[in-house]
Parts: sequence; C-alpha cells; structure tokens
Amino acid sequence: MKKILVLNGPNLNMLGIREPGVYGSDTLASINAEIADYAKTQNIECDFYQSNCEGELVSKIHSLMTDYDGCVFNAGAYTHYSYAIRDAISSVNKPVIEIHMSNVHAREEFRHTSVISAVCKGTIAGFGKKSYMLGVEALSDII
Amino acid sequence: MKKILVLNGPNLNMLGIREPGVYGSDTLASINAEIADYAKTQNIECDFYQSNCEGELVSKIHSLMTDYDGCVFNAGAYTHYSYAIRDAISSVNKPVIEIHMSNVHAREEFRHTSVISAVCKGTIAGFGKKSYMLGVEALSDII
Amino acid sequence: MKKILVLNGPNLNMLGIREPGVYGSDTLASINAEIADYAKTQNIECDFYQSNCEGELVSKIHSLMTDYDGCVFNAGAYTHYSYAIRDAISSVNKPVIEIHMSNVHAREEFRHTSVISAVCKGTIAGFGKKSYMLGVEALSDII
Amino acid sequence: MKKILVLNGPNLNMLGIREPGVYGSDTLASINAEIADYAKTQNIECDFYQSNCEGELVSKIHSLMTDYDGCVFNAGAYTHYSYAIRDAISSVNKPVIEIHMSNVHAREEFRHTSVISAVCKGTIAGFGKKSYMLGVEALSDII
Amino acid sequence: MKKILVLNGPNLNMLGIREPGVYGSDTLASINAEIADYAKTQNIECDFYQSNCEGELVSKIHSLMTDYDGCVFNAGAYTHYSYAIRDAISSVNKPVIEIHMSNVHAREEFRHTSVISAVCKGTIAGFGKKSYMLGVEALSDII
Amino acid sequence: MKKILVLNGPNLNMLGIREPGVYGSDTLASINAEIADYAKTQNIECDFYQSNCEGELVSKIHSLMTDYDGCVFNAGAYTHYSYAIRDAISSVNKPVIEIHMSNVHAREEFRHTSVISAVCKGTIAGFGKKSYMLGVEALSDII
Amino acid sequence: MKKILVLNGPNLNMLGIREPGVYGSDTLASINAEIADYAKTQNIECDFYQSNCEGELVSKIHSLMTDYDGCVFNAGAYTHYSYAIRDAISSVNKPVIEIHMSNVHAREEFRHTSVISAVCKGTIAGFGKKSYMLGVEALSDII
Amino acid sequence: MKKILVLNGPNLNMLGIREPGVYGSDTLASINAEIADYAKTQNIECDFYQSNCEGELVSKIHSLMTDYDGCVFNAGAYTHYSYAIRDAISSVNKPVIEIHMSNVHAREEFRHTSVISAVCKGTIAGFGKKSYMLGVEALSDII
Amino acid sequence: MKKILVLNGPNLNMLGIREPGVYGSDTLASINAEIADYAKTQNIECDFYQSNCEGELVSKIHSLMTDYDGCVFNAGAYTHYSYAIRDAISSVNKPVIEIHMSNVHAREEFRHTSVISAVCKGTIAGFGKKSYMLGVEALSDII
Amino acid sequence: MKKILVLNGPNLNMLGIREPGVYGSDTLASINAEIADYAKTQNIECDFYQSNCEGELVSKIHSLMTDYDGCVFNAGAYTHYSYAIRDAISSVNKPVIEIHMSNVHAREEFRHTSVISAVCKGTIAGFGKKSYMLGVEALSDII
Amino acid sequence: MKKILVLNGPNLNMLGIREPGVYGSDTLASINAEIADYAKTQNIECDFYQSNCEGELVSKIHSLMTDYDGCVFNAGAYTHYSYAIRDAISSVNKPVIEIHMSNVHAREEFRHTSVISAVCKGTIAGFGKKSYMLGVEALSDII
Amino acid sequence: MKKILVLNGPNLNMLGIREPGVYGSDTLASINAEIADYAKTQNIECDFYQSNCEGELVSKIHSLMTDYDGCVFNAGAYTHYSYAIRDAISSVNKPVIEIHMSNVHAREEFRHTSVISAVCKGTIAGFGKKSYMLGVEALSDII
Repeated sequence: MKKILVLNGPNLNMLGIREPGVYGSDTLASINAEIADYAKTQNIECDFYQSNCEGELVSKIHSLMTDYDGCVFNAGAYTHYSYAIRDAISSVNKPVIEIHMSNVHAREEFRHTSVISAVCKGTIAGFGKKSYMLGVEALSDII
Repeated sequence: MKKILVLNGPNLNMLGIREPGVYGSDTLASINAEIADYAKTQNIECDFYQSNCEGELVSKIHSLMTDYDGCVFNAGAYTHYSYAIRDAISSVNKPVIEIHMSNVHAREEFRHTSVISAVCKGTIAGFGKKSYMLGVEALSDII
Repeated sequence: MKKILVLNGPNLNMLGIREPGVYGSDTLASINAEIADYAKTQNIECDFYQSNCEGELVSKIHSLMTDYDGCVFNAGAYTHYSYAIRDAISSVNKPVIEIHMSNVHAREEFRHTSVISAVCKGTIAGFGKKSYMLGVEALSDII
Repeated sequence: MKKILVLNGPNLNMLGIREPGVYGSDTLASINAEIADYAKTQNIECDFYQSNCEGELVSKIHSLMTDYDGCVFNAGAYTHYSYAIRDAISSVNKPVIEIHMSNVHAREEFRHTSVISAVCKGTIAGFGKKSYMLGVEALSDII
Repeated sequence: MKKILVLNGPNLNMLGIREPGVYGSDTLASINAEIADYAKTQNIECDFYQSNCEGELVSKIHSLMTDYDGCVFNAGAYTHYSYAIRDAISSVNKPVIEIHMSNVHAREEFRHTSVISAVCKGTIAGFGKKSYMLGVEALSDII
Repeated sequence: MKKILVLNGPNLNMLGIREPGVYGSDTLASINAEIADYAKTQNIECDFYQSNCEGELVSKIHSLMTDYDGCVFNAGAYTHYSYAIRDAISSVNKPVIEIHMSNVHAREEFRHTSVISAVCKGTIAGFGKKSYMLGVEALSDII
Repeated sequence: MKKILVLNGPNLNMLGIREPGVYGSDTLASINAEIADYAKTQNIECDFYQSNCEGELVSKIHSLMTDYDGCVFNAGAYTHYSYAIRDAISSVNKPVIEIHMSNVHAREEFRHTSVISAVCKGTIAGFGKKSYMLGVEALSDII
Repeated sequence: MKKILVLNGPNLNMLGIREPGVYGSDTLASINAEIADYAKTQNIECDFYQSNCEGELVSKIHSLMTDYDGCVFNAGAYTHYSYAIRDAISSVNKPVIEIHMSNVHAREEFRHTSVISAVCKGTIAGFGKKSYMLGVEALSDII
Repeated sequence: MKKILVLNGPNLNMLGIREPGVYGSDTLASINAEIADYAKTQNIECDFYQSNCEGELVSKIHSLMTDYDGCVFNAGAYTHYSYAIRDAISSVNKPVIEIHMSNVHAREEFRHTSVISAVCKGTIAGFGKKSYMLGVEALSDII
Repeated sequence: MKKILVLNGPNLNMLGIREPGVYGSDTLASINAEIADYAKTQNIECDFYQSNCEGELVSKIHSLMTDYDGCVFNAGAYTHYSYAIRDAISSVNKPVIEIHMSNVHAREEFRHTSVISAVCKGTIAGFGKKSYMLGVEALSDII
Repeated sequence: MKKILVLNGPNLNMLGIREPGVYGSDTLASINAEIADYAKTQNIECDFYQSNCEGELVSKIHSLMTDYDGCVFNAGAYTHYSYAIRDAISSVNKPVIEIHMSNVHAREEFRHTSVISAVCKGTIAGFGKKSYMLGVEALSDII
Repeated sequence: MKKILVLNGPNLNMLGIREPGVYGSDTLASINAEIADYAKTQNIECDFYQSNCEGELVSKIHSLMTDYDGCVFNAGAYTHYSYAIRDAISSVNKPVIEIHMSNVHAREEFRHTSVISAVCKGTIAGFGKKSYMLGVEALSDII
C-alpha cells in the first residue's frame, strides 16, 4: 500500500468559512475525510497536514523524501510567490501534484502566476473538492 | 447516458510522432480508444474531433450547444493566443475542461499563458494521456 | 449603384445566442436583413459573408479588390491578433470600416487592442446592431 | 424635441488651421453649422461648446445632468490622459459618444490609448467632420 | 487658533450626485459644514475651496504659503497624473494631507497610483466623509 | 464595549531601535500603551499582537472572526507581497484598517505597492504613532 | 534528386498586387517558376503550396515528414504569432528555412518578432524574390 | 525688429520661492527683466506670460500664429504629460524652444520624459536662468 | 575574539541531499564544521543557525544587535522576495555579508534579483562552500 | 570587377576555437579563404577585416563609401547594442548584408534583438560559414 | 583665458557626408573652425578631439581633470548606452555640456534615452551647428 | 606556480581620483601592488592590465586561453552592457571571477544588471580593494 501526503497551505483551514461563494461550504476536515475514503479505494493511505506558515510547509515537503510516495498539494496564496516552497519541492525526489479548488485563471491577475508549477508533476484547478480526488487519482497513476 | 466531445487542436494528429520525448509514443487514435473505454465505465459516450484549423475548432465548439453535455479540450498551441476559441467557449453554455498532456509551465515561456483558462470550468495539465481520463472524470462530476 | 461587403468574423454566427447580455438577441440573419434594407435607402447593395476561419476572411478581403467598393467589417476576436487580416486589408485598395457591436474598451483588457484599426478607414464601436448601419453610412460618404 | 451638447476639447478651435493635412480645412464654426443642420433633420437641437481647459470641460459635462439628453464629444488630446474628464462622464447619467475626426490608431502611439472610452456609450473615429454626424445619429438612436 | 484649507479637486462638487454607491449621498456643502464643526472642536478654523481646474488648484495651493497652517486635500482624479499639483505642494512649506473618500486601491487600476503622495505629509483613504475628519485630526497634531 | 485587535507585523518589535530617523524613538510597548489609553476614551478595548512570522499573522487574523469587532493592522514589509495575509483578511468578515507609520510613498519603490489595501476598509499612512490612533478612530466609526 | 516544398503563407497569393512598393511587381506564379528553374540547376525538385489558412499550413508542414527533404517557408504574417505553425515545424524532422522578401526589421514593430525562427534552421530576409533562391541554396547545402 | 513670447507654465510664478536649492532665488519678474534686456541686444522684443492653467497655455500658444515670430517655453510639470500643449505647438507654424532651468535628467524619473520635445525646434536644460537667454539666442538664429 | 553568526535560510538543511549537481554533496553540518575551523584561524568564533521560516530568520537577525559582531548570510530563496528580511537587516547596525553557493546569475531568471543586496555590506556568489569561507574572511576585515 | 568588404566583429577571430559546438571548427582564416574563392566565381574581389573594437569597426564601415561596392558583415555581439555601428552604416550609401553563423533566435534572449538590421539591406542567419557565401551571393545581386 | 575641450563621438567625422538631410552639409573641420572663432569672442580657447572609439573618449574625458576648464560634448550614438562614458564624466570634476545637433526626441525611439545627461551640467539639442556655440556660451557662464 | 590575470576595465585607472567617497583613495597601482603581494602568499603570480577600450579587453581575455590559469576581472561599466566581453569570456576555457569594489546593488538601477555574471565562475562585490584579494583567494581554490 502506497502512502501520500495531502498538504494544504495558508487559509485552507478556513474552508467552509472563507468566501463560501468561491470555495463551497465543506470544511477542510470533512474534505479530508472524503479524500481518505477515496484514496483507500485506490489502495492509498493519506496523511493530512495544513499550515499557514511557509517555513512549516517547506519542512513538511522535506519529509516527502523519507515518509511518502508522493504529495497532493494546495499551496494557497503561497502558490504565487513562494520560491522557498518551489526549492523545497525541487529538493525532494517525489512527485507533487499542484491543485487548486477554484479556477485561479478566472480570478484576480495575481492568481494567474504559479511559481511552483514548473517543479510539480502536473496541475489540476477549478473542480472544488473534486480537485483533490483527481490529484490522488493522478498520483496513483505515477507512484 | 451523457455525451461529450473530446476535442483536439493543432498538431495533436501528430501524437506518437511529434516530439515523443515530450508527448509519448501513443497515437491519437489509440488514446481516443482508451478514452472511449474509460468514459464508458463512467456511463459517458464520447465523440472525437481533431483539427489544425482555428476556425473549424470554433465551429465545433458551437456544436456543444445542441449536441453535447460537455467537452474535454486540448487546444494545443491555440491555447496561447486564440481569443476566437475563447469567445466560442463563452458563447455556448456547456462545461469545457482545458487539458494538456505536458506540464506547460515547465516548458517555453509562451506556453505559460492560456487565453482560454478563464472561460473553461477547470484545467488539468502534465499527466500525459492520463490528463484526458482525468478530464472525463472531472466532467462526469459536473454534467 | 455601389456594392459593398458586410463581413463578419468568428462567433458572429452565434449572434442572438452568444452572451445576449452583451450582444442582444437579434440573429445575424435578421441583422443582415436590416442592414440590407438600410443600405438600399443609401442606394447601396450589400453582400454578406461570415466565417470563423481567419484564412477564409483573408481570402474574402482579397475579393474586395475586384468585386466591391468597400467593406463594413466586424472581425470579432481576430481584431486583437490577426496580422494576417491586417495585411489582407493593406493589400487591397478599398476602404474598410472596422465595427464592433459592444464597447470593446469597457470589456476585458485584451479587447482594447486592435491590430487592424491602423489599416482601416475608421472605427465604430458600442452601438449594437446600429454600429453596422453607421458603418454603411460612413462608407456611403467615402465610396 | 431632444437637446444635445456637441462638446469639443483642446485645440479644436484651431480646426481649419491646425494640421490641415490631418484634419481638413473646415473651421469649427462651419462644421458646427453643418452638425446643427444635420441634427435638425433628426429632430435634435444642438448646443456647441469648446474649451482648451480641462476644468471647464469637466464643468460643462456636469451640466449634461440637467440640461441635455446626451453629448457628442471630441475630447482632443485630453482623450489620452484626463481621468478628471472620465470621472465627470461617470458622474452624470447621460449617454456620451466619443468621436475623433482622424483615425487615431493610424497616428502616434500615445493616441492609441483613450481613458474615456470605457465610460462612453461608444466610439467613432476616422471620418473627418462626418464623425460628428455619425455621433449625432448614434445618439438619436439612444436618447 | 490655527487656520487650514480644505481643498477639493475635480468632480467633488458632484458629491451626493455622482456615483452615490461609491461616494454616499452627502453633498460637498453638507460635508464641509460637518468638517467646520469638527475642526472647531479642535480649535481649528477652516476655509473651503473646490475647483475642477488643475491650474486653479495649483494657484490655491500656492496661497498656503501665506494664508494657512496646513491643508486637507482631496485631489480627485488629478491625484493620478497631475505633476503640476505635485510641484505646487513641493513649492510651499506647509503640511498637506492627501485624503480620499473611497478606498482607491479597491477600484480601477489607474486609481492605484498617486503622483502626489510622495510630497504630502501622509495619506488617508477609504472612510467616506470621515476621511476628511481624520485628515483634520492628523493635521491638528502637526501644525 | 467594543474590542479590537492592534496587529503588528515583521520588525515592528524593533520600533524605537530600527531606523529611528524614519520611525521615531518610541518603543512598540510604549506606543501600545498610548493606543490603549486613547481607545478607552473611545470606549474600545484593545488586544495587542506582534509577530515576525507571516503564518502567525495569518492565524491571528483568522481569530478576528470570533474574538474581535475589527483590526488596526501595520503589516510591515508583508504589506508589499503577502497574498497569504490578503487572503486571510478576505476570509474574515471584520473591518481591517491598514496603517503605516512612515509615508510609504516617499520611500523606496517597492514600498509603493500594497497587496492588502484592496481587501482592507481603508488606509492611513505617514503620521508616525498617530497613524494608530487615527486607525482606532476610523474603526470606532465603523464598528 | 532531392525534393523540397516551397511554402507560402497568408496574402502571398497577392504578390505583384499587394503593396508593390514593398514587395515588387512579380506574381507568385512567376516567382515560383523562377524558383523551379533555379532549383533544377541545384538538382532539386520543388513543389509549391500557398494558403491563407493557418490550419492548412500546419497540415502541409506535417507532410514534410514523408514527402520532402526540406522546406523554404515564407510564413507571411503568421510569422509573428502562429505558435501552431511553430509546433508543426518542431513535429517534423526536416530542415525548414524561414524567408521574408522584405527586410522585416525595417518595417512596423510587430514584424520584428518571429515565433518560428527558433525552430527553423536559419533565416533569410530582405532580398525580394532572391530570398527564395538563397533559401533553396541554403537548403541544398544541408539536405 | 522680431517679437517673441517667453512663456512659463505651472509653478514658475513661485520662482525665487519654490525649492530655491533647485531653482535659485531670482523671482520670475527679475528673470523676465534680464531676458528682456538680453533680447534687446539681439534686436528682439519679448512678451511675457505665465499661467498655471494648461488650457490658458494652450490658448496662448495659439496666439503665436498671428502675434509672434517664435517662443521660448518653460512648460514646467506639463512638459511630462500635456499632450494638449503638444498639439497646440503642432497647430501653429512658429518655432518653439523648450527650456528647463534645472537638469531634468538628474532629478526624479518622471521628469525624464518630455511629451513636447518632439514638436519643439530644440531643447535647452540645466543652466538656471541662463537657459532662457540661450533659448532667446537659439531663436534669434532661426527667426 | 570576535563572534559572528553564520545564518542559513530555507532548504539549506537539505544541503548534500537537494540537487547535488548544483550544490555538492557536503551536508550543512559538515560545512559548518569547516567554517568554524576556518574562522578560528581568523580568531573568530561562529554561531550557526538555520531556519526554513522567514519570521524566525527575521528574529535571529534582530539578535545581531546585541549578540554578534557581524553575519554571513545565505538567505536561500528568501533572497528573491523577502522584504521582511531586508528590513530586519536594516534595523540592526551590524555588517551582513550575502552569500550564495551557486552562481545565481547562471540559473533561473527569478534568481537574478536580490532584494537584500542593497542593505548588505557585500555579496559573494558561485564558489560552493568556499563562498562561506570568503564571507568570513570579508567580515574579518570589517569587524 | 566589383569589390566588397567582408567585415567581422568581436570574438570572430576566435572562430574554430570559441564554442565549437555552436560555431564549428573552421578558423576565420580558412573561412575567409573559402569566401574569397567563392566570390571570385561571382566575379567579386573581397577584402577582409576583423576587429574586436567597436570604434575600429565604425571607421572601417566609413571606408565603404570610397573603397567598396558593398559589405558582408558579421557584427558579433555588437549586433545587439551598438547604435554607433548602426549610425555608421546609415552614414554610407552602400549595401550592407547582416550575417550570423548561428541561428541567433534559437539562443539566449539578448541575441534576438539586432539594432543594425533596420539599416542593413537584409539578414542571413543560421547556416554556419555558408551564411557568408549566401551573403556574397545576395550582394552580387544588388551591386 | 579659459581652455575647453570640444569633444565629438562616433560618426561625427562624417558630418557633411552622413545623412545631410538630418545634419546639414558642413564638415566637422569647418564647424570646429566656427566654434574656435566664436569661443575666441568669449575669451575661450578650444581644443578639438573626435573619436569613434568609446575607450578613447573615456580617456580623453579623464584629461579634463588636468588640462581643461570644461567640455562641450556631442557623444553621438554612445549617448544612448555608454555607461563607461557616464562614469568617466563622473570621475572628473569639470563641467560637461551635452549637445546634439539634431532634435533627438523627434527621431527614433532609442535616441530618446541619454545615459549621460544626469552627470552633465546641462543639455542642448536641436539647433544644428549652433548647438555647439550655445554649449560654449553656456560653459563660459559657468567656468 | 600558477599565473593569473588581474584585469580592470574603464575608468579604473582613475581609482583614488574618481568618486573617492565611493571607491576610496588608493590608486590602481598601489592596489595592484597589494594584490601581487597577497597572491604571492597563495603561490600565485599576477599580471595586471587595465584598458578603457572594450575591444582591448576582449582581446586580452582571449589571451587567457594560452597565457593564464584564470582571471580576476573588474569590468567597470562594461559589466552592464558589453555582450562582446561576455562572448569573449565564453570563448576561453579559463575561470573568470567577476569583482566589484562597491556594492553595485546599493547604487543606481543600471548597476544592478550584469551581463557577464552568467559566464563567470562567481561574483564578489562590495568590499573595496579587499574584493580583489577575495577574488584571488577564490581563484586559488579552483585553479
């Protein structure tokens, strides 16, 4: 059985609370539960981690090297400027899938740039919580 | 049973031939066959269309309005500059999923801009032919 | 009696269907009929042509040289990037009037640039189907 | 009977004098007379005002609110940078038509930007004095 | 007792009339009365001046040198491009507070640039008519 | 009695130490004491929090939702690039006032951009420690 | 004997007609005849194809793979924006020589950018119909 | 005897008062007297005009056509953005010399751009009041 | 004996692991040991600190004020965007030497910008672990 | 018999030594010999000159006026920024052909700009030493 | 008696030959003679130097320090990019006047930028050979 | 014993004279003497060369190939725009260390760009004459 990390960045602890018009009303906990269920059907075990702190996300990504087969990652706003996270992903030799719940290209200009896409395996954006499931499925195909 | 269009833009008829290092050695015909098989498991029927001509893609997108429940669309290089295709997607009231086989953000600068993302439902990029399957699955969730 | 071409570019066959909030609910056929009626009062005969294909528009513009006294042209999204159409207009020695139904400057940034304005006689934008009539009137003054 | 304002900005008092190669040899007075005659055929009464001063144009635009049904406006060079005039147009609830005698897009780069287009009803450019007549006709359709 | 100038630029005579959704329904006269009352509680006497004309604002700012202890200034749209007003503020040795009623940074792009901030003492934006009161209070602390 | 958060970002713990020519010689503790006194006169209770860590500021802003009526926020250098903080402010439904002690527009170019202004209620900059008091007063008017 | 394709893009069917001041008065047919004669002296057989349609050019370029040893290509205005054509050239493993009759760098700004140069073998511009002959000679050296 | 206009734009009435470190302590009146004396030695008569208002400067420039042989013009801050003044200079057929007292290129970035240089005969900058004398001498050579 | 801080930013804990092709195979611990040895020969004592967290780096830099004579600092990816770290360096009155192991200018575009160089004493880049030794030597010359 | 100058700029004396992967292993001397042979077949006599010094190239170009019928010029890196060389070419009334051995558009960004193309007769790039021969042939057609 | 250097940069040895439409038909020698005569009337002795080589101009500027009281300098095309010349002017403590014969702002875009203006005393442009005389006069006022 | 070249570009012959506030009061000769002494302690022999001429620097760099083991290079202002020097460094297979005496990033904007960094081994900036010693030491580690 494979083991992956489902990693969430800043403000995603506010899911179900923050801008429900954009992100829906499910909480991160309930979404994580759904992901875990879905992953199990793919014979994958999930760990979950969320942090608002760039440095903690960097450190957690480092743990991919020894503890996980891959990662589904919603970097939140850090997507747009965190070269530290970019370097962290480069520094580990495990596939990372970039996901976004909203269609970032249909929102503010600054959300159109991702500094991490180039070092991720691929990107999935715009399908709400379904984006995570698709990320798990994409990962299951690779690992 | 739902019916969707799997639409491919310029040069994708060269799949299996063009830059196999980037796109793999499957031909478009064999990928389409796999997509059809996969879609059937989701209770979805697929039509397939490929054109190198921007205008023909525009016209085909118009047909979504009356003939399909949604579309999985790899616009190829038109992704980066065809506002005509963008307007075509806006003009029909059906969900379109933008997909790319390669991770466009890890390639040349000009491939980092998509003029159609903002009018698509979502985007999936970087998973080879698996990108199409993920697109079908994402669509099956919406239609 | 003078003869002009009323030329429409990509997606304008969707008039009355596409984004009616922006473009109104008249179809291209009904608008063309109104234009023909109006032109007749100016002693002008109209031909009508619409294509989604850049290359076909280029070829049709070439026909201005021998078949028409001028052209009222809504280039749709090609307005913003088709240097091929720009060159076609330059290559014929007949007046072309650029028209737009919507006020392009009140919409998305990419619609603020026209690559064909500089080689057209003049521009009319923002008056719905009335833009075509004004184009015919402007042309009647020149030819 | 409707009443409109034909408003002219800086340097247009020099018409017939300034760069006749670009603007023709009619004076503003003679053009205004033609506009008045034309407007009468549309059952529209015209007032005329010209100023070189941005602030006076702003104040005159404010008068649209109570004294006129609409405005045909050639803002001259203020077109390209007067956000004060833009705000004035926004502050009144009457249709304003932006017109230019020359084809501004075939001239210097700085003339390609209009900061007022987005708050006007529509734009007409490139037809010499005929641009004013087309503006009156466009306005007659709206008011 | 100190004496200050409350200076308003273009279109602010339209307060209560222009875009009430953005600026509220108080007129400039009623706001000025409130400012005067508030200033009196701070032992400050106010003069009020509004002009749509850049040149008149420049001249009025020159009068700060001899007639006032400071200035609360809403430059309206001139904020974004009037280097003449900027130079006027530099030329007098009295504190000027830049204020805006709306949150200019939440509006159109062109409103995000102020060419006068660098020569003002400070900036207050986004609090409706309260912005003026805060400006008076800030000034009372300095003069 | 209302309760607000006075929030300070990176390096503001160095107040009174760091660049006293720019920021004055009061320490953060002494300024906070003055703010508390001033707020009491407005019948407002203040909590104080400072962190150099972007993630901790994000988390603290989340607490506005349940614990405070509003926030006076000096984001320090994060003002210029922290989209994570911007998203945090968007995710809570409480008014946040952006303040700066120095006149940021009279300093280095990079300080002229604020990525949080658009999601704050308003901005106050340039009045030293008085900026905080004005922020409290502005907030008292809203909450 | 080697076989090459002499490929011409949009508006080049207007040669001898379009802007003779820039392109000379030879027609495409007469130039093609000269090219054929010249190529024969190099022991090369030529096919000729011209299209105004981007998609048809893409398809024709695909045919290089099986039918030709190389290509002399004047892409006309598509030179400046057709990434679809660029991808087509990349997808076939045959040398393509980019040629222009006019000195594109001495003309409008938009003609200074070529999106296809990087995937062509080399570029020849500015020598009128002689550019084609030089292209054939360059190709003869490679194939 | 020739007659010229010495024209000064915004804030130049503050000469001797405004930023004496940059502009020196002579007043405009005393400088004008020196210019008049100097011009007389060149057999030139001078009129003097200063205005803070862009529109008044535009109108005064129009008077060159009938009343003067040329103009020495310090446009102050309008130098950097007044296309209305640029058009005014273009509209009259008399030589205008652009002058600046300070070396504008050694000051703020925005002072490095002049929108009027291209339509003036020449430019002189950086020599304090001597710049005017050099302007008169340059003009005397032309008229 | 002088005491300095050798400070390392995000991902440098991965040295010897991350991209060994770029950074070599020494671990941070072994490099630190070499630095300590080298510094001792210069009669300098070193403390070592590494953090992935921007806020913790900011706080550590503050400690320079009281605990160290200077700092050798490899800010990792924060080099390129952390204005918070820049402000921290400005806020302490001790020399900081910016170092990089790789030649940042020979890598991705985003690595060519350093927002901290301007507030550091100097920069050393491209010499692998030797960069640290050179930094210590440069510092020994200053403190 | 015609006489031309084959002119080479900086670093081309290193041909056969410098980056042979890009430029091949022929030396400048051996290439020049081949050019001379080839030119003789075209009834053209060649002089050869190479300099690393911009000023010497400028002076040599001046000699075209009196000593040569035309010039084949590889300006090396000066191609990208030497406006002095551009002006030199403009100052003589003889045709200059710009050539490059490598395909400059497939290399670093800075090599995509040529400041001399606009004043040359035409450009040939990407064919190794054959570029010179094509340049001679192009020139033979003109002189 | 004062002594100045009249320094001319690249291509100015071609005066009277190069683009006479722009620069007139006087040769550099004849202009220098006129300058010498004029300078004598100002009690100034002139040396003359022209070079096409950036490095020689740098060295000559260094000689200002010991041999001259000031310099009138037409840097030709080096004006637009030679930071080496800029540094040379900064390195000597003598006034340098930048002059241009043509009105550089009315010509190509690249001529609108001067990298040396900021370190010169002032600039004079657009008066043909008279520009040199005005430069001498300006210098006579300073030295 | 190794042999290196210490190479200095334009204006560095003015060291001790030019802007002593920025560069200190040591002359190039005295600095070179110190470098020679220091290098001897590293068992390295130094040659010294300075030129203001770009072309001579290019030629000297070519000599690295046969005469030296490496180079410490202060390119002065050529750092910012000399692609000819960049190509020269690329053309020789010897390590070059880029050094600057001042902290170029704390000075004018144009000094923040180096076109040679990418082809040098590494960069050292900001330590006055010590920068040369550090460069020698860095080189001693490589050669």
